[in-house]
Amino acid sequence: MESAIDTHLQCPRTLSRRVPDSYEPPFPMFVARADKSLQQVVMAYFGVQYAEDSQRPKALAALRHIVESFDLSDGPLHHDLTDHIDNQNHHNLMAVAYWADPAAYCRWLRSDEVNDWWSSDERLTEDLGYFREIVAPRVEQFETLYAFTEEFPGIGSVMGTSSGDISEHGYWGSMRDRIPLSQNDWMQPNDELTVISGDPSQRRRVIVRGHDNIALIRSGQDWRAAGEAERGLYLDEILPSLEAGMDFLRDNGETLGCYSNRFVRSIDLDGNELDESYNIGHWRSLDQLERWAESHPTHLRIFVTFFKVVAGLEKLRLYHEVSVSDGKDQVFEYINCHPLTGMMRDAVVPASV
Amino acid sequence: MESAIDTHLQCPRTLSRRVPDSYEPPFPMFVARADKSLQQVVMAYFGVQYAEDSQRPKALAALRHIVESFDLSDGPLHHDLTDHIDNQNHHNLMAVAYWADPAAYCRWLRSDEVNDWWSSDERLTEDLGYFREIVAPRVEQFETLYAFTEEFPGIGSVMGTSSGDISEHGYWGSMRDRIPLSQNDWMQPNDELTVISGDPSQRRRVIVRGHDNIALIRSGQDWRAAGEAERGLYLDEILPSLEAGMDFLRDNGETLGCYSNRFVRSIDLDGNELDESYNIGHWRSLDQLERWAESHPTHLRIFVTFFKVVAGLEKLRLYHEVSVSDGKDQVFEYINCHPLTGMMRDAVVPASV
Repeated sequence: MESAIDTHLQCPRTLSRRVPDSYEPPFPMFVARADKSLQQVVMAYFGVQYAEDSQRPKALAALRHIVESFDLSDGPLHHDLTDHIDNQNHHNLMAVAYWADPAAYCRWLRSDEVNDWWSSDERLTEDLGYFREIVAPRVEQFETLYAFTEEFPGIGSVMGTSSGDISEHGYWGSMRDRIPLSQNDWMQPNDELTVISGDPSQRRRVIVRGHDNIALIRSGQDWRAAGEAERGLYLDEILPSLEAGMDFLRDNGETLGCYSNRFVRSIDLDGNELDESYNIGHWRSLDQLERWAESHPTHLRIFVTFFKVVAGLEKLRLYHEVSVSDGKDQVFEYINCHPLTGMMRDAVVPASV
Repeated sequence: MESAIDTHLQCPRTLSRRVPDSYEPPFPMFVARADKSLQQVVMAYFGVQYAEDSQRPKALAALRHIVESFDLSDGPLHHDLTDHIDNQNHHNLMAVAYWADPAAYCRWLRSDEVNDWWSSDERLTEDLGYFREIVAPRVEQFETLYAFTEEFPGIGSVMGTSSGDISEHGYWGSMRDRIPLSQNDWMQPNDELTVISGDPSQRRRVIVRGHDNIALIRSGQDWRAAGEAERGLYLDEILPSLEAGMDFLRDNGETLGCYSNRFVRSIDLDGNELDESYNIGHWRSLDQLERWAESHPTHLRIFVTFFKVVAGLEKLRLYHEVSVSDGKDQVFEYINCHPLTGMMRDAVVPASV
């Protein structure tokens, strides 16, 4: 048994774990481990939004253009593709990319090819929306959790290896306890989401400024290799509660501190659905995410089912990654997206001067 | 908003609360407040056990004898009466008594009238079982929680007044955070339950030695004054999950750290049922109680229902009290009870020398 917090990230605490040292989790779970040289990662969500099915070929072409740009120098180490319908019944394709080197990411983003495409006036005249939502948490600002130990998805894909059995799981509060920064920091928000450029109601280009400690969760399910029994378990027992909970957050998140919630389906470059899905939730704070997760009936049902089945899982892969990040390490930019897209919905629009 | 931990019991922390200072609970709840002079309380469960319905009149007479003894000098300040059927289908009547002065309790217990009755050989020849399970937590070792502010049952009845809205509730871990000792102590068990006199399999007199930090929860429901809607809410929506959860703990507690679990119905001196019930659970440790409460489907269902209805409760009274206590402040004594009664079930019987 080892701590989810890697040895080189452990430090004297001013805040205690929720459970005593003698705590023993009821089943094994694992986290991704990285070399000590890893300092900060980048989690980038590049989106293409469209309103009508007829726009899908064009949107898929735009998605493929984004994916091609990943092959440029300093591009991401890993990416995957998703599709979802949002709160306004718009379709959204996303390329979700991960870097293990924020300097490389920065060079890539500022490269002529990438920057020129994003900045071009052509983006304003296409009938597609675009967004990029990017956070760059330092290693002490995120955690992972897997019920398996190989071929990690998401951020785990750029980290390297798996831990052994970790201690901090199986209780409410363990997510916080797995984040190294929790040893000394409550990770509280310091400000509000604010529109700092553009006007969401006018579409065109909008930039939203984030704030310290926005929490981002990616929580996923991969049933590609599952046999009939595990497919049934996922599709019949887990998915209905999951969809109900995720729809609830998508539509009612504002009062709970959930800025944005997208339950997405993995796709290939041609837009065909794969047997993978995940949720992407942006929260005003980690504790608001905790409160929802530990009290909402839909999530409690998912949790109970997970507890019941986890020890017997073979090919059904369940996991999550949760980060907080500094406001200065966040990018929330939108082009021609509807005004309830992503961080725009809850962002304060300053009175014009 | 005030802390559940009374001002004179607050001290510099070595262990942090689970939630930041900015936490705001989703609905109001209250705790009992006592004068600063209160140092330690006594919670005493006096039981009469019988196997056959035909023994009930005799058992009720024994219960009345116990209640009469409460009128002796230094008797308890408050008591109530209960009935339940246990894990062996035996009936059990209990008088549950509270003192605010452990010295008075001690004088009462050692008084000739009380001591002679308990010690008499006549107790061995009646066909009734008797037990007394008593803990005396110091004020820093227990907490209370009420969805109402008047006429507190249980330990609250001897404390005095109600707090205003308290901060530490509505999240898993708040029970621990309400116990003043949690500021500096994990409240971990230091030993096992041990039979130190007698042999449970032989019945007769058995004494079980407890250990530090056995956790005792009394969790109650009072629908005496409830109107039709709230009676229905309790009887149809809460009770089925509650019974399922309590039966589960009664029958499966051993592997979970639940030494004993009794879901009891309040009665009057003649044994007539009142519209009140509560659960009495003894746990090896507070954290094992926490783990069960926050992960078992039956308790999560109760919790979800409670969250849904609590803001609208009028006459349905829901509450609990939770304590830990030092091994030296515990009494677990049995006369002619079946060997799975109370602490006997999980107590180690030392190899005879």
